[in-house]
Amino acid sequence: MIVGAGFGGLAAAKRLAGKRFDVTIVDRRNHHVFQPLLYQVATAAVSPADIAGPIRAIFAGVPNVRVLLDEVSAVEPSNGWVRCASGRVIGYDHLILATGARHSYFGHDKWARHARGLKSIDDALAIRRQILLALEQAETEFNAELRRALLTFVVIGAGPTGVEMAGAIAELARRSVSRDFRSITPSCSRVILIEGGERVLPTFPASLSQKAKRSLEELGVEVRLGTKVADVCESYVDCSTELIRASTIIWAAGVRASNAAEWLGAPQDRGGRLFVNDDLRVPGHDNIFAIGDTASVSALGGQPLPAIAPVAKQQGRYAADVILGRARRPFAYRDYGNLATIGRSRAVAAFGELHIAGLIAWLIWCFAHVWFLIGFRSRLSVMISWLWNYATFDRSARLITGEEILRVPMPPRARPIERKCA
Amino acid sequence: MIVGAGFGGLAAAKRLAGKRFDVTIVDRRNHHVFQPLLYQVATAAVSPADIAGPIRAIFAGVPNVRVLLDEVSAVEPSNGWVRCASGRVIGYDHLILATGARHSYFGHDKWARHARGLKSIDDALAIRRQILLALEQAETEFNAELRRALLTFVVIGAGPTGVEMAGAIAELARRSVSRDFRSITPSCSRVILIEGGERVLPTFPASLSQKAKRSLEELGVEVRLGTKVADVCESYVDCSTELIRASTIIWAAGVRASNAAEWLGAPQDRGGRLFVNDDLRVPGHDNIFAIGDTASVSALGGQPLPAIAPVAKQQGRYAADVILGRARRPFAYRDYGNLATIGRSRAVAAFGELHIAGLIAWLIWCFAHVWFLIGFRSRLSVMISWLWNYATFDRSARLITGEEILRVPMPPRARPIERKCA
Repeated sequence: MIVGAGFGGLAAAKRLAGKRFDVTIVDRRNHHVFQPLLYQVATAAVSPADIAGPIRAIFAGVPNVRVLLDEVSAVEPSNGWVRCASGRVIGYDHLILATGARHSYFGHDKWARHARGLKSIDDALAIRRQILLALEQAETEFNAELRRALLTFVVIGAGPTGVEMAGAIAELARRSVSRDFRSITPSCSRVILIEGGERVLPTFPASLSQKAKRSLEELGVEVRLGTKVADVCESYVDCSTELIRASTIIWAAGVRASNAAEWLGAPQDRGGRLFVNDDLRVPGHDNIFAIGDTASVSALGGQPLPAIAPVAKQQGRYAADVILGRARRPFAYRDYGNLATIGRSRAVAAFGELHIAGLIAWLIWCFAHVWFLIGFRSRLSVMISWLWNYATFDRSARLITGEEILRVPMPPRARPIERKCA
Repeated sequence: MIVGAGFGGLAAAKRLAGKRFDVTIVDRRNHHVFQPLLYQVATAAVSPADIAGPIRAIFAGVPNVRVLLDEVSAVEPSNGWVRCASGRVIGYDHLILATGARHSYFGHDKWARHARGLKSIDDALAIRRQILLALEQAETEFNAELRRALLTFVVIGAGPTGVEMAGAIAELARRSVSRDFRSITPSCSRVILIEGGERVLPTFPASLSQKAKRSLEELGVEVRLGTKVADVCESYVDCSTELIRASTIIWAAGVRASNAAEWLGAPQDRGGRLFVNDDLRVPGHDNIFAIGDTASVSALGGQPLPAIAPVAKQQGRYAADVILGRARRPFAYRDYGNLATIGRSRAVAAFGELHIAGLIAWLIWCFAHVWFLIGFRSRLSVMISWLWNYATFDRSARLITGEEILRVPMPPRARPIERKCA
């Protein structure tokens, strides 16, 4: 049984396909999301169906893999079964926990309401809606202060997701849409990227962080390093030194593993990830594996492995190999390199000692992401969207959807600026 | 001022583009929807962004057309202004009402909760979600009766929308997805098309109605003609002679014009459409026009004009011509033909005395719809989706989205069948 159809769960299920096991893969969504491109849905560059596909379709021709739409609510290792939200109980011989991570607001759960994170298609559509509505309202807003707030976009956290979001919003708000609006010019919009640490993309070599920061600034993003967020409330971010008024605030600062550790009552690290043995088994549970963002695994130097797709995929395949009796040695992550994009023709890539920035890195990024997309149809569609966007600066998926479009409260009006927003 | 950016409103604005008028086009959505293909979003064949585009982008290069996201709530002809839901008041010299239609349940408003109509992108996504969730739940349902209900899809109304929906659901549920599911075979699903009249596609020649009915039946759709719906409630349709249990019920039976007639307090027909003079002006209001589904216009024979895109477009252009002082004679609809599709390689087309059915009609339908789609990007994307769907039977946009996916109550379980569901 595999819980979660992210990169790790899918990789495990694919490795077990056609083998002498009955595999059940449970996910609370019917689709696998290609998370690295989720920010492109949020910024209206591609459609949800371009980067997500039904899990069921992936295993259509595989008789020994069963796909189930349900949410696991508890694991009972002593009985060897899991309980689902629908009331269903499913027994297992081997269990792979690949339940991923969710946003973490460092104990400030109330921030979640004002600063949405980006983990699912629904998150991406909500952010897209928020950005596009802010632009629409700014177009006709006479109050200068409110207009400034509507055209200010704050991204908190400068890891790969934060950098990609900030760059993409800058391209959207400062470039793509400005010809459509009468009163919004490229210089009207502000995109602010806030990072607590001393550099953007902290998992990359320092020289590439430098280049990424410069690229962001060329796109018009204001990068604030070493800036801690003290409070987030509706339309305000309080950075201690400064109170930023913004109607769109996006959270890209922290994640926390899902509930898997609580299900098992097993030891976890600070981020909620399960400690695992060097064959990815959970200590004390010989037939339970944790992989991807659910597992706390360190590389040779003692550094924890990053929460990225290649790690999850390799772990998924490894866990399947252990079950198949094929794994000969402890799990070791093979690092093929690290990529992040900032905007058109701007990206950074680190392959061991080889560091690249600019157009070449961006082309490698494009190629790698299209290559790993699920399904030929998606690849083609995303490639066309990208070529189109590149040639025209257009963003094709600029739809504001959601029921009751105008009855949703728009960003607050005429709220007095105070030093403390709480 | 133009209220509504459907086919009629857009056509009027385009005709006025670059002329010596300041045009404001108001819509409560930021996008124009190509309604004839909305059923393809509902049945997961194309993505929303493929058939809808931002209104603002259409008029990006047109300085005299302003686009406004807002909802008109009242018209005050004596003052010459309209009031919007946001509180905004906008004055006009000429007003074109192109506010379209919404579903009408013939006085049974409570049916709306159980039988969704198809007018907006949100409607289409909700129907898509309902169909896909029903299939997911059916896959693992042991109760035979409930399983049957989950796999029964009822479409009420056999006009073009109803016929297209029924055909597309049959293709989706009976063909496309059956290889992805373990327990759903093509013969498990039932699609029932209910029509009160004596034939499907009543606006088409009788011979084509016959052929359309046969095509539907070849696809596995059960067509019930002369069948009146007595009641619709959650998971049931009561047709007097029969009680059909179905978890998915779609309403394609009736529409009613929007509130424009109430705004003016002007005479309206039974469907809520404004009576207009032969130059599309509302009687008593020399500077107010009603077009498209908002206007009640009869053809030469006294038959009301159908509620289709070509009528709305010609009326939009005509109203603009009147304002420009260019209209020499009363409005007359030029009928270029009538098209409806049933499924792959199945369509009917009537061009005056020329009636075509089958593959040729279907190719004409494909060509015409791609031709009229807004924007080169959409055309390309839809064409690729169609070629892909045609070649593989796949449906690429099969995503169940919406927050709290599993906490939404799934179709009711173990509800006793009673003769009357109320």
